[in-house]
Amino acid sequence: MKKLLTVDDVSVLEIESMLRDASEFAKGKRWRPKQQIFVANLFFEPSTRTKSSFEMAERKLGLEVIPFEAGTSSVLKGETLYDTVKTLQSMGVNMVVIRHEKERYFEELKTCQIPIINGGDGCGNHPTQTLLDLLTIKQEFGKFKDLQVSIIGDIRHSRVARSNANALTRLGAKIRFSGPPEWFDESMKCFGPYVEIDEAICTADVVMLLRIQHERHAQTLDLTKEEYHQIYGLTVEREKKMKANSIIMHPAPVNRNVEIASELVECSRSRIFKQMRNGVYVRMSVLKNILETFTEEIGYENHNQKWMAR
Amino acid sequence: MKKLLTVDDVSVLEIESMLRDASEFAKGKRWRPKQQIFVANLFFEPSTRTKSSFEMAERKLGLEVIPFEAGTSSVLKGETLYDTVKTLQSMGVNMVVIRHEKERYFEELKTCQIPIINGGDGCGNHPTQTLLDLLTIKQEFGKFKDLQVSIIGDIRHSRVARSNANALTRLGAKIRFSGPPEWFDESMKCFGPYVEIDEAICTADVVMLLRIQHERHAQTLDLTKEEYHQIYGLTVEREKKMKANSIIMHPAPVNRNVEIASELVECSRSRIFKQMRNGVYVRMSVLKNILETFTEEIGYENHNQKWMAR
Amino acid sequence: MKKLLTVDDVSVLEIESMLRDASEFAKGKRWRPKQQIFVANLFFEPSTRTKSSFEMAERKLGLEVIPFEAGTSSVLKGETLYDTVKTLQSMGVNMVVIRHEKERYFEELKTCQIPIINGGDGCGNHPTQTLLDLLTIKQEFGKFKDLQVSIIGDIRHSRVARSNANALTRLGAKIRFSGPPEWFDESMKCFGPYVEIDEAICTADVVMLLRIQHERHAQTLDLTKEEYHQIYGLTVEREKKMKANSIIMHPAPVNRNVEIASELVECSRSRIFKQMRNGVYVRMSVLKNILETFTEEIGYENHNQKWMAR
Repeated sequence: MKKLLTVDDVSVLEIESMLRDASEFAKGKRWRPKQQIFVANLFFEPSTRTKSSFEMAERKLGLEVIPFEAGTSSVLKGETLYDTVKTLQSMGVNMVVIRHEKERYFEELKTCQIPIINGGDGCGNHPTQTLLDLLTIKQEFGKFKDLQVSIIGDIRHSRVARSNANALTRLGAKIRFSGPPEWFDESMKCFGPYVEIDEAICTADVVMLLRIQHERHAQTLDLTKEEYHQIYGLTVEREKKMKANSIIMHPAPVNRNVEIASELVECSRSRIFKQMRNGVYVRMSVLKNILETFTEEIGYENHNQKWMAR
Repeated sequence: MKKLLTVDDVSVLEIESMLRDASEFAKGKRWRPKQQIFVANLFFEPSTRTKSSFEMAERKLGLEVIPFEAGTSSVLKGETLYDTVKTLQSMGVNMVVIRHEKERYFEELKTCQIPIINGGDGCGNHPTQTLLDLLTIKQEFGKFKDLQVSIIGDIRHSRVARSNANALTRLGAKIRFSGPPEWFDESMKCFGPYVEIDEAICTADVVMLLRIQHERHAQTLDLTKEEYHQIYGLTVEREKKMKANSIIMHPAPVNRNVEIASELVECSRSRIFKQMRNGVYVRMSVLKNILETFTEEIGYENHNQKWMAR
Repeated sequence: MKKLLTVDDVSVLEIESMLRDASEFAKGKRWRPKQQIFVANLFFEPSTRTKSSFEMAERKLGLEVIPFEAGTSSVLKGETLYDTVKTLQSMGVNMVVIRHEKERYFEELKTCQIPIINGGDGCGNHPTQTLLDLLTIKQEFGKFKDLQVSIIGDIRHSRVARSNANALTRLGAKIRFSGPPEWFDESMKCFGPYVEIDEAICTADVVMLLRIQHERHAQTLDLTKEEYHQIYGLTVEREKKMKANSIIMHPAPVNRNVEIASELVECSRSRIFKQMRNGVYVRMSVLKNILETFTEEIGYENHNQKWMAR
C-alpha cells in the first residue's frame, strides 16, 4: 500500500492483511524498520485521540516523529498545504499523517511522492478509525459475515458512518441506521435501511454510536441534550434490551448522557476504551504496510526487520 | 510509591529515599527501565520550567514522551479530564504528569489505574517543587534539624508554602513566615509564627521567597512594584544582613526587583538556578520510584535496570 | 565555533569548512556525539521550515530535542529571554536555537555560557539560511568566484539580503540588487549596484528572490499582487531570458504569482526545494561544529564519534 486516503480504496484482501498484522501487534509482537524513518503528523484540527494514537504507534515502531503545530506554522503566512507537504518531503520526512477540515484535501496533494495517511478530512473519511472498528468487531466475533451492525446518530456529519457501512458490507455484515431522521442521509440506503431507535438497538450484535459533531456543523435539532438522550440515545433502559453478547462502540470523545448514558461508558458491553487501544495497533499496521511498500518502490535501503520475538 | 499527588501523603522515610536517589542522579549515576515506557505531560496551565524539567528527567531516563497540547486537545470539544487520562491509558501510556488550574483535580481521577504525578494543582500542591527545595537545602546543610527557614511573600496563593512548611517541620526544621499580612494565612500558624520582614531575613539559614502569583489572583495590594520591593522584598540592603552561610531560594520565574533585587538573582547566596538543576534530579527520582513500584504491581515485565556506572 | 549569531562573524575559512561537512552529510555520511545531548528550539515567531529543518538536523545527529512552545511558556508570565535561556541551561540543556522578532535579541544573552544558534532575529540575521544558500550555489557551480548573483525584492526587510551579499562578496561573487526602489537600502551599495529588474534577471547566474515580508512590515507599495508580479516578479516571460545554466533560488515560503510565477516554482532552473534539503545538511554541520568545539571547552566528556560509514 502506497498511501491510505479512504477505506473505499482498500481491497478486502488488504483490509484482512492489515487486521492480521494489527492482531499480531496486539499480541505484543514487534516490528521495526532498521533505518531512521521520519514521520510528521499534520493536524489542522484539534485532536487528542487520533494524534496521540498515531504518535504512540509511530514510537512503538521506533520512528522519529517530527513535531508540527499547525497553529505556529507557515500556513499562517498563507502557505498552501501542497507547499507545506512538499517542504517536509524535501527535508527528508518519509511519511505524513494529515487531519484537515477540508473534505478531500488530499486531492491537491496528488503529485506529492511522499506517502500520506489520512487522519480525517472534514465530514469525509477517517480510514484508520474504520480499521480500528473492524479490528474490535473481529476480536469479538471472529468474523463479519451476517453480523448485525446498527449505526446510530449524526450520520450526515460523521466521517466514519459511510466508510464503516461500506467496509462492513463488503465484509459481509448487515447494516441498519438510526438516529434523528434530519441527520440521516438518503444516499446511505444502499448499505441498509433506516429503522426506529429501539429496533436498531435490540436487534444488533454491534451498537455503533456516532459522536454528535457539534464543532463541525451549526445545524442543530430543536432538542435539549436530555431530550436527545431520551429519544435517540443509548439509555440505561435501552441497554437492557440489547442481545446477549452484543457490544457497544463509540469513536469518542463521548458526549456523556447525550449519545450514551454516562454509566454505560465503562459497562461490560462497552468496547469504547478497547477501541482506543486497538487504534494504536491498527495504525502500527498501516505504517508497517506503507513502509514495506515504500522501501521497495523508491529506493529506501530495503532492510526492514522481520517480525521480532517480543 | 504508586503516585505523587501531595507531599503530605509521602512519609519522611519515602522523602529521604527519594532525596537519596536524586543525589545519586546529581552525581551522574544512571538508571533506565529496560522496556519502552510511555509518559505524557498534560499541562493545562502555562509552564516553561516544570514542563521542561519533567521532559528532561524523562528523556534522561530514556522514556518516550508523548506530546500533549492542552490547547489543541479534545478538551476543547468538552472532554472531561477523566476521559482524557483514561484515553491515554487505553492507548498504552504508562504514566501521566498533570498540571491543572483546578485545585485537587486529581480527586476525579481516583479510579484511573495509571500512576499520576501532580505537576501543580491551582493554589493547592506542587510536590516535586517541594522535593527539589528539600534537596537543595540538604545539599547545602546536610541536615534539616533545627534549620531556620523563613518563607516570605504570597503565602495564601502559593502552592508550595504549605507543603514546604509541612515537610520541613516533619523533617525537624523551624519555620517563620513573613510578607504582606493580607496574604498570610492564619491556618499556617501551626507551622510557625508570622514575623516582620527584617527579622525573617536576618535570622534565617534559608530565605525562601515565593513568587507573586499575579496570574492566579486578582486580589492586589494597594502598592506599586517598587513599594512592594522596599517593604516586603529581598533588597540589596536586606541581603547584607543575612546570616553567614545562609542561602536564598525562589521557585522562579522571578519577578525581578519585586520579590528580589535583580542583582541578587545570581549572587553567591542564591541557589535559584541550582534549584532548577535539582528539579531534574528530583523528578528522575520520582519517576524511578513509581516505575519500580508499578512494574511489580500491575505486571509490566519486571526487569528494570539496576543503577549503572556513569 | 562556540555559537552562530551572524554570518558576518564567521570567517571564510570557517564557512568553507562548514560547507564541506554539509556536503558530506548530503552524501549520506553520518556523525553523532556519543553521549546524550539536549537541545531546545525556542521559536518566538511562526515557522515551519526553519524549525522543522533544525529538528530534522538534530534528530539525524541523534540529539534529544526538548519541546518548547513560546505560546505556553513562562514568557507569558513576563519572564525575560535571559531567564528563560538560563533556566534551560540550568536544567542541563546543552544548546539552544532561537528565533525572535527582536533584532539582535542575542545581545542580552552575552553572559549565557550555553551555545546559541540564531534561527532568525527580526529583520536582522538568519545565518543558517545564508549557509544553505551558499551550499546550493556551490553544489551547482563548484565555486563562487566571479559568479553573478542578483538579489531581488524586499531587500530592506529581509534578514538574508545583507548577510548573503556580504558572504558572497567575501567569497568572490559579484552582486546586483533589484526590486522596488522603495525597498532598496542605500547602505547595500557597498556590495553592488541597484539595476533594473530585466537586467538583474538576464545577466545572473543566480536569481535570488526574496520573500515579501508581509508579516514583518506594514509599509506596502501602492501595487496589487498582480502589478507587483508584472513589474518586479520573476514572470514566465522573464525566466525565458535567463542565461543558460542559471538557477532560481527563494528562501520560501513562496508567495506564488507574486515574487515568482507559480509554474516556475518547480521548473528545471528552480533550486527552491533543493535549498530546503540543503538546510538540513547545513544545520547538521553547524551543530556538529559547535558540539565539537564545546565539548573541548567546557568539559563535556570529549568522545564525539568520528565520521561513520553510511
